[in-house]
Amino acid sequence: MTRKQLFEKIKSKRSYLCVGLDTDPDKIPAHLHQSPDAIWEFNKQIINATREYCVAYKPNTAFYEALGPAGWGIIQKTIDYIGPDHFIIADAKRGDIGNTSRLYARAFFEQLSCDAITVAPYMGEDSVKPFLEFPEKWVIILAHTSNSGAGDFQQLELKSNMPLYEAVVKKSIQWGSPDQLMLVVGATAPDKVAHIRTLAPDHFFLVPGVGAQGGDLEAITYAGINASCGLLVNASRAIIYADNGPDFAEAAAAVAENLRNQMDPLLSNHGL
Amino acid sequence: MTRKQLFEKIKSKRSYLCVGLDTDPDKIPAHLHQSPDAIWEFNKQIINATREYCVAYKPNTAFYEALGPAGWGIIQKTIDYIGPDHFIIADAKRGDIGNTSRLYARAFFEQLSCDAITVAPYMGEDSVKPFLEFPEKWVIILAHTSNSGAGDFQQLELKSNMPLYEAVVKKSIQWGSPDQLMLVVGATAPDKVAHIRTLAPDHFFLVPGVGAQGGDLEAITYAGINASCGLLVNASRAIIYADNGPDFAEAAAAVAENLRNQMDPLLSNHGL
Repeated sequence: MTRKQLFEKIKSKRSYLCVGLDTDPDKIPAHLHQSPDAIWEFNKQIINATREYCVAYKPNTAFYEALGPAGWGIIQKTIDYIGPDHFIIADAKRGDIGNTSRLYARAFFEQLSCDAITVAPYMGEDSVKPFLEFPEKWVIILAHTSNSGAGDFQQLELKSNMPLYEAVVKKSIQWGSPDQLMLVVGATAPDKVAHIRTLAPDHFFLVPGVGAQGGDLEAITYAGINASCGLLVNASRAIIYADNGPDFAEAAAAVAENLRNQMDPLLSNHGL
Repeated sequence: MTRKQLFEKIKSKRSYLCVGLDTDPDKIPAHLHQSPDAIWEFNKQIINATREYCVAYKPNTAFYEALGPAGWGIIQKTIDYIGPDHFIIADAKRGDIGNTSRLYARAFFEQLSCDAITVAPYMGEDSVKPFLEFPEKWVIILAHTSNSGAGDFQQLELKSNMPLYEAVVKKSIQWGSPDQLMLVVGATAPDKVAHIRTLAPDHFFLVPGVGAQGGDLEAITYAGINASCGLLVNASRAIIYADNGPDFAEAAAAVAENLRNQMDPLLSNHGL
């Protein structure tokens, strides 16, 4: 999916919501465990219930890998079921030496038909470049994450008078244009969202941490929105585990709809 | 596997060699493509041929994920086939927020029965800790990697007068003892191996980059060896693609044996 197509979807759906499919066998409703393929059934119902309110889905590969070989098949079925109308992000946080990253790119872009993959920056340019060679596919670089460990290294001050995450942003936006590279910027630190927006005015940000992790939608929108929205705000647990009874899908739809309804006027306020 | 058990294996086999199973469908011998499960057949023959000369195997998950859902099954069969006499490293370079890293730990330690997994440090402590909760399992943190991109961030100078990789080493060895945490230190920079050895005298290092990437076995051994060896030196392409004809397994065995034969006197020289 191109940046223009993504922006068109955001405008027409009045939403920049991404639904995180962190489907955990220990957390899905008990009644589904009767079905042979409970994770897949759960995903299907969540997708049906939330499709209308979001522009993107983000399956986190860890949750599927933990299921063993069958898990990979469930990611594949889930992605096929979402289809081409949504932007699909493999939240995989990969990154390796060049020849290996090329294989990961093939796995996620060709085998699984994802639009984007999250990539950790620690190994530098040759670990990221192979992902950028696929037309209309995206790399999403971890810049400043939403977890407590973000303080351990990402915020360390460099001799060049900037924190590490700033060096990551400045270097990585030279590797990929706003048409092929996004940045992960956690919702739990709106000041960092604002700061990174000054460094990367045109790149999209994937913003996790709204919901279970406590990020504030309005604050991060004001801090990060740009002329083509430039934000994909992700909520995972707050949506998919909104309820764990038989009406879990309706409950998920209600949370997603509520987020979309908050996003609509925020877009309008910014002339979008 | 415990550190003591690993050290015993190194002493008795006169080897600290790790064989990297980066099995690429485009590089395996043409005659294998006739078999329905060529990657698995290739791995089996490589393992049979090299078992005697190495103490560890390191399948790189990218190569299997690129095969789609079947790939995960091949990793599993490969790991089962290697068995408990070798230290098995999932070269996966994972790392995510705490609840997600826990799932990766389950995938690699419980589902796949690996001894160790490589982890990227960028997301900090809570992304690493869940891997350390599994007894006799290991986390291997990327400290200074063997690729050209290592210069992009790992070597950046911090205000605290050290390069980033040094901060990663100092912090991560507080998270995990030498009985549960290793460090990735690339073979292509023996000076970094020596420097990191002064910072982490007791931790094992996983040293990739010997062979195809040009690292020098003797130089890195002198730089990094300690009283319990403290080194697992990995070669992947140089061993598994030593020849691509019908005798590929014998050729792989010869390269692995040659490396073991170089390691034996290096161990003796250090009283091991």
